[in-house]
Amino acid sequence: MFMSELAYTIGVDLGGTNLRAAAIDRSGRLLDKIAGATNFEEGRDAVLDDIAAAINQLRARYGSAGFHGIGIGVPGFINIEQGLIVGTHNLLGFDGFPMRDELARRLNTPVVLENDANAAALGEKWIGAGRDVNDLVLLTLGTGIGGGIISGGRVLHGYVGMAGELGHITVLPDGYPCGCGNNGCLEKHASATAVEAMAKLVTLGDNLTAKDVFHLAEEGNRNAQRVFEQMGMALGIGLATLINVFNFPLYLLSGGVLPAWKFFAPAMMEQIERRSFTFRNTKTRVEPATLGNQAGLFGAAYLPFLMQKLTAGA
Amino acid sequence: MFMSELAYTIGVDLGGTNLRAAAIDRSGRLLDKIAGATNFEEGRDAVLDDIAAAINQLRARYGSAGFHGIGIGVPGFINIEQGLIVGTHNLLGFDGFPMRDELARRLNTPVVLENDANAAALGEKWIGAGRDVNDLVLLTLGTGIGGGIISGGRVLHGYVGMAGELGHITVLPDGYPCGCGNNGCLEKHASATAVEAMAKLVTLGDNLTAKDVFHLAEEGNRNAQRVFEQMGMALGIGLATLINVFNFPLYLLSGGVLPAWKFFAPAMMEQIERRSFTFRNTKTRVEPATLGNQAGLFGAAYLPFLMQKLTAGA
Repeated sequence: MFMSELAYTIGVDLGGTNLRAAAIDRSGRLLDKIAGATNFEEGRDAVLDDIAAAINQLRARYGSAGFHGIGIGVPGFINIEQGLIVGTHNLLGFDGFPMRDELARRLNTPVVLENDANAAALGEKWIGAGRDVNDLVLLTLGTGIGGGIISGGRVLHGYVGMAGELGHITVLPDGYPCGCGNNGCLEKHASATAVEAMAKLVTLGDNLTAKDVFHLAEEGNRNAQRVFEQMGMALGIGLATLINVFNFPLYLLSGGVLPAWKFFAPAMMEQIERRSFTFRNTKTRVEPATLGNQAGLFGAAYLPFLMQKLTAGA
Repeated sequence: MFMSELAYTIGVDLGGTNLRAAAIDRSGRLLDKIAGATNFEEGRDAVLDDIAAAINQLRARYGSAGFHGIGIGVPGFINIEQGLIVGTHNLLGFDGFPMRDELARRLNTPVVLENDANAAALGEKWIGAGRDVNDLVLLTLGTGIGGGIISGGRVLHGYVGMAGELGHITVLPDGYPCGCGNNGCLEKHASATAVEAMAKLVTLGDNLTAKDVFHLAEEGNRNAQRVFEQMGMALGIGLATLINVFNFPLYLLSGGVLPAWKFFAPAMMEQIERRSFTFRNTKTRVEPATLGNQAGLFGAAYLPFLMQKLTAGA
């Protein structure tokens, strides 16, 4: 049937500073994209208006015949059953807000809501580095560390949608204190923020970004290189645990720290080798993700397709 | 239909020292059980003969009309696709052996093979402490620590069936060395063997069993109590990580150390509280399993029922 080739969805990636929406077809081809800033200071309604406007603009362009729905990735926990955003600090005014139903009402079409890291993992599974597997874990190494777990081709949600809080697994029980109440959370030792804090500790400089530390490492600065080795060690401890837990074929890394791969990966792989019998005995891959900061947008767009697939078949 | 009430399977729990087989009906009622010793010294064929004899005896008793198949739980990794036992040190002569197909051939009926901890988790999910949930993690605290993960009502297997190697997640990166090559594996700090080793370290005695240490703790011996506190701490670190990863509603503990619950649980819960934002914000339960050492037997018997269910519906 000719029409089926035009099948598309609209994916939305709502971040703390950026709002992106894209029309993407069933094969994962990006048809069109709209990007703008999110203006949370103007209030929740203004943000919802922006989202609705972007979606309507794309929908007007590509028509309703082949339109298959809307997927939205947001930073924060999702109460999947109720379609609520919960425990978000990045989206002012949205904590506890029934995002899914409100947008569905405004747009008069079903909306699927997902955590941004889960959406990114799903995007990588759909058309990125994970396209050949059904099971993978994605860690996004940014300001914090987010995690997404794809099991059997779907997002592992857990009880209320909070599965995959991989930034808060304990890698060093007596490590740096975390805002979550724990010590030694993965994200306190292996995020971009952790790289910056460690750079300060080794007196590289007080206000260096992770990118600055990377450039220093490139210039041969041993302390900068050591920062990434420490970061890689912590990441390796966490990944070894995930590999022992899941025995999945693929673990992907993405986010701002990724360019420093050559500086942190050796220490990371050394820990994984040593701490995971499963890694040594199965064909487990630990690799960079390939969609970059587009993963969440693609994953969001995939959500309505996946839902149809699950409803139809499975 | 009257016949369906007689539907039964045969579950087999093959251990390093014991062989148990039971006919169990669809509602989880134990019809009959045969127990004996495993004699690995007599060779693999003798063990297979014993298994086949026990199964045939039960099958003769309950007939073939309502017979729905055989499930077997074994200590060791299972290569699910090929039905092999791999990496077992407890079953002399069975490493790499095509257990599933060989037994199916001898018994002329399909056989489902499963790792023993996975089978135990499935048993608890079927008719034990997890009967009201679809997602749970079971840790068996014995000589080592085994793990079983039930996600969406089924065992999470991972790539080659090695998921749930929870005894080897790192809880203390610089902790006791483990035979797997790692330091600070959960099972080096929280198994019965760990309790015994720690009792030695605190000079309680050189050849105390975990049970002896428990009795000393009961008598008010502070060092014995401290051993369980240390063990509980390590267990809590591991459980907090699992809770952050899965956000499942239920985490169960079973095995030989379980009677010491009151001595290790306070330290365990303190770590979980502190290290898991997810625990504090969702209704997560950490509880003793209820089927004891029968869990694996029931879980094995459930395997053929589950397989039919998945083939028929899902």
